[in-house]
Amino acid sequence: MFTKEELIEFCEAARQNYLDHISIDCVVFGFHEGQLKVLVLKMKKELAWYLPGGFVLKNEPIENAANRILKERTGLDKIFLQQFHVFGDPERSRPHREMYKDMLPGVDNWFSHRFLTIGYYALVDFINVIPTPDHHSESCRWYDLTDLPALELDHNLILKTALDTLRLQLNYQPIGYNLMPKAFTMPELQKLYETILDKKLDRRNFQRRMLGFGILNRLETPRKGGAHKAPYLYSFDLENYQKALNEGLKGGW
Amino acid sequence: MFTKEELIEFCEAARQNYLDHISIDCVVFGFHEGQLKVLVLKMKKELAWYLPGGFVLKNEPIENAANRILKERTGLDKIFLQQFHVFGDPERSRPHREMYKDMLPGVDNWFSHRFLTIGYYALVDFINVIPTPDHHSESCRWYDLTDLPALELDHNLILKTALDTLRLQLNYQPIGYNLMPKAFTMPELQKLYETILDKKLDRRNFQRRMLGFGILNRLETPRKGGAHKAPYLYSFDLENYQKALNEGLKGGW
Repeated sequence: MFTKEELIEFCEAARQNYLDHISIDCVVFGFHEGQLKVLVLKMKKELAWYLPGGFVLKNEPIENAANRILKERTGLDKIFLQQFHVFGDPERSRPHREMYKDMLPGVDNWFSHRFLTIGYYALVDFINVIPTPDHHSESCRWYDLTDLPALELDHNLILKTALDTLRLQLNYQPIGYNLMPKAFTMPELQKLYETILDKKLDRRNFQRRMLGFGILNRLETPRKGGAHKAPYLYSFDLENYQKALNEGLKGGW
Repeated sequence: MFTKEELIEFCEAARQNYLDHISIDCVVFGFHEGQLKVLVLKMKKELAWYLPGGFVLKNEPIENAANRILKERTGLDKIFLQQFHVFGDPERSRPHREMYKDMLPGVDNWFSHRFLTIGYYALVDFINVIPTPDHHSESCRWYDLTDLPALELDHNLILKTALDTLRLQLNYQPIGYNLMPKAFTMPELQKLYETILDKKLDRRNFQRRMLGFGILNRLETPRKGGAHKAPYLYSFDLENYQKALNEGLKGGW
């Protein structure tokens, strides 16, 4: 929450620099060894948490804006963000209108305006990135999806919609290149899918379907060590993986 | 294209009524008996064609705006429009800035502003709807996708993105309830998919996959008449169809 002086300063700069009525919010999912988390921020002097978000510069392409905002607010750089939905309920930012309406009445108050927000999402390995809060924020951290504090505004809806989109994406696009080690077993890849879907999958069906996509190479040497039969190792076939990213997975129409 | 008087009048009303920086464009695909078309408008005193589009009222939910705009501009009512992408290149509306910059210089000119546009799409039976141009437009009509005139602004990109989205949607959602007769043969349904995908599909694979989705009921009485074996008739199982709309088609993860 801003003090009055901070609010006035922010609103003046916002009017000069940003497109009115439009914001961006980012849902960054973090996966590592069977855990799925989401990146959230806590503003200074507020109890509630937010998805990392911000505004679009007057001459900035929106994809650049999404990446800049995520970097400024969380320190995460070079993340592949995908646009997934615009949230346009006129009442969605009412809590911010209420929060600041006495501090700075009228249209000079940037937060008194209506904002549509464009949602972007990404899936990263949370071990490889170190979240860093910006100067508006007291904390920037990963939370387990199952243990998430309440989010402000419509950010719970934005998060849920992003998760639905990610789950749907598993049916038509490959996933996991940036999340799996260079060589991995089929059960390790299955764990990624099970974690995102939050349900168990049948081992044989998973293997048959995944091999049918034609995006995996089986390595000649199985994994060493371990008591029983050494499991086969796989790596992504990058050419076919990229093709499936562009054209959809095999098995579609 | 507006005259100067029309432009001044439009811009004054726009500033009062609409959210700045945001527009909506609608891609309405029309299917009927193996033909796929798209609905386009020709403005008065312009050579180029546009997708039907417009602006969002200051207190209007964006879904309502999309439906209102489509109705006002084309006469099409009660169409199920799906949001699919925001187009946010800062240069995307440059032709309109250029077109009107001498007629009304400065920020009073609504068309000198930057606009992001939210794309919505729908698929309807073009026999059931009669396009009617609004008073800005000289013509409102269906064009074959293969015979489309050049579209203004980035509307070719918006159309292409909508078509890609529709084709992808065939892999995870049912389609056709509003396009097929109450009872239809498998080849008739296959023709819908082939028309959207613009490619031939294997008859047996199509039938096996489609039946696997569990959204069809086979009727007891085959179609009468015809020289050879009477073909089976199918209808959609509405309960399962609705379930698949919400949860995705069977055969996903």
